[in-house]
Amino acid sequence: MKLSKLVGDRFKETPSDCVVASHALMLRGGYMKYVANGIYSSLPPLKRITKKIEEIIREEMDALDGQEVSFPVALPASLWEESGRYASVGSELLRFTDRNGAKMVLGMTHEEAAVQLVREYASTYSRYPFMIYQIQTKFRDEARPRAGLIRVREFTMKDAYSFHTSQEDLENYYARCLRAYQRIFARAGIPEVVCVASDSGMMGGNLSHEFMLLTPAGEDSIVLCPECGYSANMEAAECIYHTEEGSADGPEAASDGPQQAAGREDGSCGSAGSGSAPSALLPVETPGVHTIEELANFLHIAPSSTCKAVVYQKNRDDSYVVLFLRGDLEVNEAKLTSFLGEDIHPAVITEESGLQAGFIGPVSLRGPEGTTVLFDRSLEGLSGLACGANREGWHMTGLDLKRDCPDAVYRDFAKASAGGICPVCGRRSLTISRGIEVGNIFQLGDKYTRSMHMQYVDEKGNSHTPIMGCYGIGVGRLAASVCEAKHDDYGPVWPISIAPWQVHLCCMRGDNAEVRAQADRLYEALQKAGVEVLYDDRNVSAGVMFSDADLLGVPVRLVASPRNRKEGCVELSLRGDRASAVKLPEETAVDSVLAKIRELTEALEAKVPERI
Amino acid sequence: MKLSKLVGDRFKETPSDCVVASHALMLRGGYMKYVANGIYSSLPPLKRITKKIEEIIREEMDALDGQEVSFPVALPASLWEESGRYASVGSELLRFTDRNGAKMVLGMTHEEAAVQLVREYASTYSRYPFMIYQIQTKFRDEARPRAGLIRVREFTMKDAYSFHTSQEDLENYYARCLRAYQRIFARAGIPEVVCVASDSGMMGGNLSHEFMLLTPAGEDSIVLCPECGYSANMEAAECIYHTEEGSADGPEAASDGPQQAAGREDGSCGSAGSGSAPSALLPVETPGVHTIEELANFLHIAPSSTCKAVVYQKNRDDSYVVLFLRGDLEVNEAKLTSFLGEDIHPAVITEESGLQAGFIGPVSLRGPEGTTVLFDRSLEGLSGLACGANREGWHMTGLDLKRDCPDAVYRDFAKASAGGICPVCGRRSLTISRGIEVGNIFQLGDKYTRSMHMQYVDEKGNSHTPIMGCYGIGVGRLAASVCEAKHDDYGPVWPISIAPWQVHLCCMRGDNAEVRAQADRLYEALQKAGVEVLYDDRNVSAGVMFSDADLLGVPVRLVASPRNRKEGCVELSLRGDRASAVKLPEETAVDSVLAKIRELTEALEAKVPERI
Repeated sequence: MKLSKLVGDRFKETPSDCVVASHALMLRGGYMKYVANGIYSSLPPLKRITKKIEEIIREEMDALDGQEVSFPVALPASLWEESGRYASVGSELLRFTDRNGAKMVLGMTHEEAAVQLVREYASTYSRYPFMIYQIQTKFRDEARPRAGLIRVREFTMKDAYSFHTSQEDLENYYARCLRAYQRIFARAGIPEVVCVASDSGMMGGNLSHEFMLLTPAGEDSIVLCPECGYSANMEAAECIYHTEEGSADGPEAASDGPQQAAGREDGSCGSAGSGSAPSALLPVETPGVHTIEELANFLHIAPSSTCKAVVYQKNRDDSYVVLFLRGDLEVNEAKLTSFLGEDIHPAVITEESGLQAGFIGPVSLRGPEGTTVLFDRSLEGLSGLACGANREGWHMTGLDLKRDCPDAVYRDFAKASAGGICPVCGRRSLTISRGIEVGNIFQLGDKYTRSMHMQYVDEKGNSHTPIMGCYGIGVGRLAASVCEAKHDDYGPVWPISIAPWQVHLCCMRGDNAEVRAQADRLYEALQKAGVEVLYDDRNVSAGVMFSDADLLGVPVRLVASPRNRKEGCVELSLRGDRASAVKLPEETAVDSVLAKIRELTEALEAKVPERI
Repeated sequence: MKLSKLVGDRFKETPSDCVVASHALMLRGGYMKYVANGIYSSLPPLKRITKKIEEIIREEMDALDGQEVSFPVALPASLWEESGRYASVGSELLRFTDRNGAKMVLGMTHEEAAVQLVREYASTYSRYPFMIYQIQTKFRDEARPRAGLIRVREFTMKDAYSFHTSQEDLENYYARCLRAYQRIFARAGIPEVVCVASDSGMMGGNLSHEFMLLTPAGEDSIVLCPECGYSANMEAAECIYHTEEGSADGPEAASDGPQQAAGREDGSCGSAGSGSAPSALLPVETPGVHTIEELANFLHIAPSSTCKAVVYQKNRDDSYVVLFLRGDLEVNEAKLTSFLGEDIHPAVITEESGLQAGFIGPVSLRGPEGTTVLFDRSLEGLSGLACGANREGWHMTGLDLKRDCPDAVYRDFAKASAGGICPVCGRRSLTISRGIEVGNIFQLGDKYTRSMHMQYVDEKGNSHTPIMGCYGIGVGRLAASVCEAKHDDYGPVWPISIAPWQVHLCCMRGDNAEVRAQADRLYEALQKAGVEVLYDDRNVSAGVMFSDADLLGVPVRLVASPRNRKEGCVELSLRGDRASAVKLPEETAVDSVLAKIRELTEALEAKVPERI
């Protein structure tokens, strides 16, 4: 490919709305173009990258005995009604009506379509296990697309679905798939991706993992324990407050976490009293005190000595959900949603509700009928807390959960925080990192097969419901993640396995006939040797030529120039490594390039784990 | 691949709603599964076929210096508003509103997206010509999906867009592209596809061709002249009535064509009078006579001696369009739509309209304001015709177009018919065939670049609007077309180039350990030799094994059986050619298979025209 003919412009300036490097570099480098919010066209360099990623994925899926199929993008709503997701999934599911009035959706994931495809085929045990997959366009009507290809509305995804007759078989396959994912990321050049436990969310099922590239550009929070290797998405991370000795987790340890409550937060507390002697539940007038921070200041206590109320409403019927947790903690909405089994939103507290916004407490709470009241595990056994008095301008002090809320059931609804207790090794060692989710795998169980009435007959003629796993990777997001992990100030540094080209050949001073002839010869010879070459044949300055080369990020660079020409040489260097430059005699340049490509490939493959 | 593990069932029975062979065979053979009206999932055999077709297309596009890109499936309506197609295209364009209320469409073709992608890049002449293409999912909300993959609502399409600075350059490129298309169809195994002139329809532009597989299963009508090679889609075929000697085309020649008028047909005529003496325009009472057939019978004249009125309404405002043509001819609605520049539908004639349904004639016609009156070229210069009198129960005889309709302008609005005059060689040689459109190419001119304000600057600094070509192939339809062209009663006979596998290895009596061991050895050896093998390792009867093999249509078949085993042989045969069976010693079987694959490949490639 000659660069003079490559469709797409490269830019010096970073577009103003770019918050992450991959977004900026992929726009500046002519990889993609904005079409609409969260929707991009791919230009040739990105298309070449994603095709290589797709081929890696395909090879790994085929090695798992996967069979490639293809499901429709536009699906009849009836399939999603069968599984129940037509009602349960929010407005990220694009629903529409066709010209004949039939309800349809744009597939954002294809569990229903997979079951529909194999429901009759897989009616006997002998056909199990099997896995089908596709690589295809998906659409999710995200509320807030961001960060270029990291969170888009339309994207290409590999989605795979496995079917099994036993949990044991699913687990064996799941382990192979997990390893295949590690191989895919390593082959794409980011072996550092970590596998973390995750919340299954709208997919259902009970065990799932996400593959995370740890980077400040990520939008997920990952809880890690450097001591024992525990890792989980914040959404799924268990929150522990009591060490094995039974002592409550003090305010020091807990005051680290980010203090942004997303729900309608309510400074519902009272006086402190952290001593062990039981204190009476007493009202205290707190005019104008609405938030936990105001209350703690007013009473001169730590936020951890308060009982906070956070109020949501269910999307389905707007009924209230009041969650009490220790004042210094944040609500983990994923856990809350998962427990409720339905979507929620921060509450709008009306006067008619009877709820006293800013003064809600667990004692004598009177919400409207249908209100759900929940208690976080962080409150279990605590006493001497301040809380709301359910009366405008008043709080209570001396709350003793055991005494005052004898019927409370405690569950884990809080966010883990940095410095918190690791749920595996029990040390106060947790750290929080940002990460990009580049893939996920789920043990779905029978959520879809049962609701969609898929059954098989075993050896003895008895009917059973099969169980499923599903496995996703976003192709464009993986490309962007590699760019996040592998770039410098000047552009991406693509791994040899997915680079748009293997070699970038620069002809400096193409107006010099001899240099031009040399570069032309090299271009021909490299192509003949099967090397993917991008040939910059333009008459532009060295500055433009090199900054374009940096933006295109091709790993091996070859420079023909008048000076090199005089020495009968060309210069070879690696992208992002100026020190690597060596002069090669023209005669052996092709062999040296081939050797360098092999070397880069082998270095990358050395980090790819074996298949299991 | 072992057949025992291949996802998908095969069936003996033809599903009841199948009207074409490819639809029935691809459902029966486990190639695809119905999901919704005009929407299918692809099972592994079809996915393997379409991937091979896509690879052929990709190679030919790359050889045309095409650069692969990817446009979004979901596009902002604003792009289609820029080009004007948001309003002009009918309900086959799926329009929807996203969660933020933005109007969007599902791309059914991507001219707008192509212009949007390169509008800034291609702002200077030196960047021309260039071509970009994608292979991608498209959605058209067809009113009547039919015939399996022949007419679907969701499909994979290769669409390519070229940009040029001169008509001459476009024409040169168009010729190369036309040849590339011939190569694609030949490489896919159907070199018999013909290239015909076509109507550009909603795409715009002024020259276009379709590639047609002639088959009774097709839904297009193709006009062919066996004498001179003229070919055109019925929609675009010019209709000639007068030979060079100037004599009118007689009723004998014209009475062949199909007699189904889609518009509101009106038996608007009068008495015959085919003599050359001018006859007066006279009213004649024709009670209960509404159609041309009734009128011709009533007056004892040929339909060709009548002037027929066919009435439509414009979709936009329901205003009437009255078209007069010779009574024996059919309206070519594509030509009419193209002339009007907007969509129409058969008229509902109300009493208030003033139009006398069944009695409409060109003299003293009084339609409502805004009525468009048109005359087909078939009427030009005719006299002595019967026509409607615009009065309930009356017709006129003696119509002389020149005398009675002095202001009429004559244009070509009629359908060509079998036995009609070839517009190129002038012989009465036309034949009509059915065809499946497997591809199309368009010279778009500046329809999109002008409306979307794309410009480039030439060497002298002057601005111009570039011109475009576009080039489409439906991948699934091509697969189905090959199936239509290459099948027998038992299943498809896939060409070696796109067959899901190259070799189908049958192990007859797999319960015989020696036969099983032989088949296993062959399976291993063939895979090692790089052959794509489907291995039927099941313990099923010969009948089931062979009928499944026939449905899967793999070109080379290899049979291991107890009898062959005793002779130290396996049997090789070609799908669809029982006479081709030969016994091969096991030792040389792999070499013989490789030779047979080479032979089939070479025979196919011999029919592929050279690139230009």
